[in-house]
Amino acid sequence: MTTAEADDLWPDVRPDAARRLMAAAVESFAERGYHATTTRDIATAAGMSPAALYVHFPAKSAVLFAISRSGHQRMLTMVERVVAADPDPVATMRSFVEMFVAWHANRHVVARVVQHELGALPPDEYEVVADLRRRTEQLVRDVITRGVEAGAFAVPDVRTAARAVLGLGIDVSRWYQDSARQTPTELGHQYADLVLRMLGHRP
Amino acid sequence: MTTAEADDLWPDVRPDAARRLMAAAVESFAERGYHATTTRDIATAAGMSPAALYVHFPAKSAVLFAISRSGHQRMLTMVERVVAADPDPVATMRSFVEMFVAWHANRHVVARVVQHELGALPPDEYEVVADLRRRTEQLVRDVITRGVEAGAFAVPDVRTAARAVLGLGIDVSRWYQDSARQTPTELGHQYADLVLRMLGHRP
Repeated sequence: MTTAEADDLWPDVRPDAARRLMAAAVESFAERGYHATTTRDIATAAGMSPAALYVHFPAKSAVLFAISRSGHQRMLTMVERVVAADPDPVATMRSFVEMFVAWHANRHVVARVVQHELGALPPDEYEVVADLRRRTEQLVRDVITRGVEAGAFAVPDVRTAARAVLGLGIDVSRWYQDSARQTPTELGHQYADLVLRMLGHRP
Repeated sequence: MTTAEADDLWPDVRPDAARRLMAAAVESFAERGYHATTTRDIATAAGMSPAALYVHFPAKSAVLFAISRSGHQRMLTMVERVVAADPDPVATMRSFVEMFVAWHANRHVVARVVQHELGALPPDEYEVVADLRRRTEQLVRDVITRGVEAGAFAVPDVRTAARAVLGLGIDVSRWYQDSARQTPTELGHQYADLVLRMLGHRP
């Protein structure tokens, strides 16, 4: 991960050393998985000593938590902004899918860690992240419900539809590679079209 | 994993000890990830000695390969059967999604290993699995193309649509739990409805 990417992902993390450790941890977790990565691996990849890591994070799980919470918080903030920007549920859903898919493609390495290492979080940290996930999912459900009430969407089950919408976006991080034939933005547009049709919208 | 589940997953694997090792490996890989699991962990979980494991598998990667190839082969066989059973692309797609989603829900633990530990396969073994994946994806694309030609489906891009269909099913293994409010079969029905609409089918 480049310094610019780490700055973009974690603009609020200070000092730079903490951000560098998070970037190194993302690469290690993505390559070997959380459990096979040691704090020494992370520190070494960040060009630091293991002791220096503990200045910023009390344990390996604290690095994972910082990465996971930040990723989930960003998703929630993104949905909140999209919902606030336009009262129209169709426009809101389109913007949401475009951004959600583009983020999971652009940031596929960190997204894989954020989405697939949830089980490695300690219980209290897991609850914090689970709460962010629930709030995000609830906002997506609310958009679908508003669309159904306005006659723009028609779905048999709002919860299942929200799961499918989120799942489509999350799955992008599993297979997307920088060499993909579509840019993240193009893929976001295409997926938004597919999602709107899935929700029963007829332009 | 129960003995019955292992028998159902790998009916052709002989002797029983090899199947027991594969079941133990699935549990360990799912819990800690491939890289943090040792051959000793797998053997111990199967009630065997590490030396006994090497009688059946030359290396840890051979156990992962057996699990991955078998899962991918089953998916390919399932699609081939569904395609052969009915010439109608709409009926074929419905059956495919119902089975694909139900399998990823029912077998979510093994499915997670099959879908998310691809990067841990050695190059030659990866190529075998990648070939099974390509053939499966091609069959799904062919069904969509036939649907478009018959006027039953309308999609802007067949490849992207096939990715989305497969991704929706695969993503189920990420979040499905045995305590889910829907049975695998119910979820398969709901997802089939969503997929047909996503492909532009209007009943």
